[in-house]
Amino acid sequence: MAFEYLSNEPLDKALEGFLKALEERGFAPRTDMVPVGEALGRITAEPLYAAISAPHYHACAMDGIALAANVTFGATATTPVIVQPEDYVVVDTGDPVPDGCDAVVMIEDVVYGEGSSIDDLGTCPVILHAAIAPWGNVRQIGEDICAGEMLLTSNVRIEPAAMGAMLAAGVQQVAVIAKPRVGVIPTGDEVVAPSANPKPGDVMEFNSTIFSGMVRQWGADPIAYPIVPDKPDLVRDAVAKAVAECDIVLLNAGSSAGRDDYSSRAVAAVGEVLYHGIAMKPGKPAILGCAPGSAIVGVPGYPVSGIIVVEQIVKPIIEWLLGCRASNDENVRATLARPCTSSLKYEEFVRVRVGKVGDKLVATPLSRGAGVVTSFVKADGILTIPQNVEGYEAGEEVDVRLLRPLVDIERSLVVIGSHDPLIDEIAQFIHAADPALSIASTHVGSMGAIVAAKRGENHCGGIHLLDESTGVYNEPYLEKHFPKGGVRQVECVYRQQGLMVAPGNPLGIESLADLAVEGRSFVNRQKGSGTRILSDYICKQDGIDSSKIYGYDHEEFTHTAVAALVEAGSADAGMGIYSAAKMYGLGFVPVCEEQYDLLIPDYAWETPMVQALLDVLRSDAFRARMEELGGYRVNQPGRVRRHY
Amino acid sequence: MAFEYLSNEPLDKALEGFLKALEERGFAPRTDMVPVGEALGRITAEPLYAAISAPHYHACAMDGIALAANVTFGATATTPVIVQPEDYVVVDTGDPVPDGCDAVVMIEDVVYGEGSSIDDLGTCPVILHAAIAPWGNVRQIGEDICAGEMLLTSNVRIEPAAMGAMLAAGVQQVAVIAKPRVGVIPTGDEVVAPSANPKPGDVMEFNSTIFSGMVRQWGADPIAYPIVPDKPDLVRDAVAKAVAECDIVLLNAGSSAGRDDYSSRAVAAVGEVLYHGIAMKPGKPAILGCAPGSAIVGVPGYPVSGIIVVEQIVKPIIEWLLGCRASNDENVRATLARPCTSSLKYEEFVRVRVGKVGDKLVATPLSRGAGVVTSFVKADGILTIPQNVEGYEAGEEVDVRLLRPLVDIERSLVVIGSHDPLIDEIAQFIHAADPALSIASTHVGSMGAIVAAKRGENHCGGIHLLDESTGVYNEPYLEKHFPKGGVRQVECVYRQQGLMVAPGNPLGIESLADLAVEGRSFVNRQKGSGTRILSDYICKQDGIDSSKIYGYDHEEFTHTAVAALVEAGSADAGMGIYSAAKMYGLGFVPVCEEQYDLLIPDYAWETPMVQALLDVLRSDAFRARMEELGGYRVNQPGRVRRHY
Repeated sequence: MAFEYLSNEPLDKALEGFLKALEERGFAPRTDMVPVGEALGRITAEPLYAAISAPHYHACAMDGIALAANVTFGATATTPVIVQPEDYVVVDTGDPVPDGCDAVVMIEDVVYGEGSSIDDLGTCPVILHAAIAPWGNVRQIGEDICAGEMLLTSNVRIEPAAMGAMLAAGVQQVAVIAKPRVGVIPTGDEVVAPSANPKPGDVMEFNSTIFSGMVRQWGADPIAYPIVPDKPDLVRDAVAKAVAECDIVLLNAGSSAGRDDYSSRAVAAVGEVLYHGIAMKPGKPAILGCAPGSAIVGVPGYPVSGIIVVEQIVKPIIEWLLGCRASNDENVRATLARPCTSSLKYEEFVRVRVGKVGDKLVATPLSRGAGVVTSFVKADGILTIPQNVEGYEAGEEVDVRLLRPLVDIERSLVVIGSHDPLIDEIAQFIHAADPALSIASTHVGSMGAIVAAKRGENHCGGIHLLDESTGVYNEPYLEKHFPKGGVRQVECVYRQQGLMVAPGNPLGIESLADLAVEGRSFVNRQKGSGTRILSDYICKQDGIDSSKIYGYDHEEFTHTAVAALVEAGSADAGMGIYSAAKMYGLGFVPVCEEQYDLLIPDYAWETPMVQALLDVLRSDAFRARMEELGGYRVNQPGRVRRHY
Repeated sequence: MAFEYLSNEPLDKALEGFLKALEERGFAPRTDMVPVGEALGRITAEPLYAAISAPHYHACAMDGIALAANVTFGATATTPVIVQPEDYVVVDTGDPVPDGCDAVVMIEDVVYGEGSSIDDLGTCPVILHAAIAPWGNVRQIGEDICAGEMLLTSNVRIEPAAMGAMLAAGVQQVAVIAKPRVGVIPTGDEVVAPSANPKPGDVMEFNSTIFSGMVRQWGADPIAYPIVPDKPDLVRDAVAKAVAECDIVLLNAGSSAGRDDYSSRAVAAVGEVLYHGIAMKPGKPAILGCAPGSAIVGVPGYPVSGIIVVEQIVKPIIEWLLGCRASNDENVRATLARPCTSSLKYEEFVRVRVGKVGDKLVATPLSRGAGVVTSFVKADGILTIPQNVEGYEAGEEVDVRLLRPLVDIERSLVVIGSHDPLIDEIAQFIHAADPALSIASTHVGSMGAIVAAKRGENHCGGIHLLDESTGVYNEPYLEKHFPKGGVRQVECVYRQQGLMVAPGNPLGIESLADLAVEGRSFVNRQKGSGTRILSDYICKQDGIDSSKIYGYDHEEFTHTAVAALVEAGSADAGMGIYSAAKMYGLGFVPVCEEQYDLLIPDYAWETPMVQALLDVLRSDAFRARMEELGGYRVNQPGRVRRHY
């Protein structure tokens, strides 16, 4: 039943063949003439030459008197020269140098004869105590720009200073590459326009907003077409209309299997399918086609696949039309924090977080789920794994294309550890206090914080690890994992853990034991998280067989994810913090108050990001916000409990 | 007579005090609500939280059948489980998971009982040979985004993926910082709107176009006001009107001395002058003032001073309003190619070319003339010399803030040597063939090419150095200066040198000797240029006393600059190439044909830029273009004459 693709062409070959085919079929950039004042950021279509020189006349560069330089020759402090009024002209800065003159003496250097003053200038003789060279204090014709000189080559972006140079050079209109028109056609019966209250089953159409934004950033003009239902005739008609109006048409398939079949038939009906199926992941179902004068790209429906296809295939077409790079991609070498495997069958694009820890850049692969649009919001870069490579080991140096400027990444606090919504609140405080700073947080549980600190991959991480034998939080773990020290345990908050249940707790759940009952269900946190350790500890303490709790192995990574599932009725209860229960209006059965600390490795301590974090923790604003969220007790946040 | 400034405050102190004063006077960002679809590139005004989860319902991730996972428990290849039609529901990808179900079995894994087929699905029992875990093949509520989670902090730029995430999270409108309105008021009696045919004395007003483009790039909305004559009342009224309409007002002074006095009086009349005179160069006359709710900046009239002031003072105000960086400045370490002195009295901003030669970045200071707007078109970066530093030596490592992406700079052919307009033509050919490549050329004469190659600072340079004793071009010089070799001498063109004279040669000039005559004038090229060496050689050969030639020490740096001055009647003749004379429609008295080669150091030979250069030289298109320009003879361009 699996769909058979027409091809499995490597991406670079497909792209090369696609551009060649398009060119052969007459696909080419168009040219616009625009006034210079509207040319900002546009791309020159031709080399641009100066029409006139700048300055366009010999201009006095000073207020003073203009004269022929040779009348001053021989003047010195002891042998001054007297210049008669008929041999000089009073001038202001910017005045044309008068005929017969080739130099300007500054007004400060002019001495008046006895009985004369500046008011007599122009009618009295003046005394000069120094000679001036020909063209002294004159901005000569062409000093800045000579007529006929090339100001810009073709295919370069027009910056503000170049606009000034054009105007100075008598250029009023400039030939620029017309912005490529990129039409985006969303399709799918289940697809609806975005709303604040979608019904179950409604898939909100936001891909066209993302794709439009992307192509706009690259210098194209996006056109968003209405959603087309999965009817072959309607899809074909929509493509035909868009092809007539656009240079590039993106046909965005619905996300179900078989949808790209509709797409390829529509492309074939309107023009030609050149490639269908590219050896890339995500993005394999991409279709490369054309109609006279237009490129057509079939883009897969899942947002992440779609984004990769638009970036890898549509961007090069736009760049080909503009004849220059569409964005300032930066490539860096980074150390991979976790292994990342890939198939030999395709080239894979993996979204990664990148942080600068110590003096190395660390890249952490993000979720590869194709539907997870937030992975692109969080991503700092893209790791490309070539088709003939099986993947990379943790610790390997890899090439990463950055999605954010390196300077921002270098000033980002890398938080890897236990999840708590207060991390986002800290991000807001830090960024608001210093816009140069930001936070990149990854939720991998308390043990993840320890592992990351050992590997030198984070600046800090939340930990709330209960030692079963002593009832003490964190210290026993840190003693064990950092026998040589090198980390600080910093007080953050005490927070209320408990069972999140439906509003009003209709089932009367009072403990985990109440969930080990037929017909009831639970949603758990992932192994290694402090909350999971707490659940496991309680089961052990209370003698509960966790295999009797339905859903005990249903693992989520954040308190909010657990709360969302309880709210949706997918589970009767989940362990989590009060603030998450409050956010979702859930019932809450307190279990214990736990100590949520921050683990900060010594190598990160002096960074501006960690120092900003400590400032936030110690602020009244943080304390107030924690009280507002609820379920937190704040004692002395930012205090170093112990330096190991 | 010199104007006394109110202050000479260091830039950083002035800026800090200015922002503080503005804040105290109620200057603050404004907020706009915009639909998500229009939020691209805007800056969030508040932290942004998800309104709903995404997915907002449990969604089937596959086409298949939905069921309760526990009915499949125990199913294996040998002990299949039969599921009755009332215990499953047929679903498509994206469908809501039906009530009572918590997993989806892929259609490919469904086996039909005897006599049934896929057409009976929904009414027939099905056989499963494997159990499925709860939530298998289900995209759970909140898998991507949980309601209540922070999507973005305040004061971050909204990228396309974030727009998608907002829509997925039920956010339809977003609070963004209103674009700061920046009014630009040009002033000056001599200032006129740009035209293609300005009169002598007309100073064309292009600063407002440059400043508008700059602030637009930083996320502000520029408003260009009409030119105001130098009448105190009119300037004051214009400022008052702009202050009422804008967040920031730029009052651009005319370029004459004393004009900033008008400006400061206008600012004082409408609001307050906080600083007048900043210890920076260029830009000292800057005025920092305010009126209720607005910042006012008095910007000097010369374009280069103005650009520096707008960048150093206006950009930080815009960034303060936006609460985030307005552009992605990149800072690099580069080796200074020439010494660069500065005064202890001010912080100086020097425009530099930057090129990557070998594995080092080389920064070459550009003309510091304040009127030279092309220095900003050519500049790759800004070198800042702090107030307490006297300057830097050649070879010192300095910090440079880049104005172009590093990746572009690294792919730029650094041409330092003799000027010929064909260098610009080569730039066009190279960039058109590969948009990733460009040329950065500096005209310092043939000897400059040799010096730069010795220091490892260029990729190539034009040379046409006549050895007086042998009459041979270039070889004797290269033998002398590169005794250990390491360079290639590459054939480029033969070109016609001669005397450029007025059209029709009304004075009947036939040789340099005809210029050593009272009443005639000459314009020369700078020492070290091949053309100057030619002029000197002819004088010597013909026994002409060059001190008798008026203007022999009037030095210009390019053939076109000499041609422009001859055309303007500023000199009766100048030595130069035929193509420059032709460009200006001048008369031309041939003197000799010279050999114009390219010097290419071995360290640069294998770079893609030099290889692209060689491809251009060897192309038919280059040959054709040289013939079109005139005055060139093309033999075998690109051929290595000799490898030293």
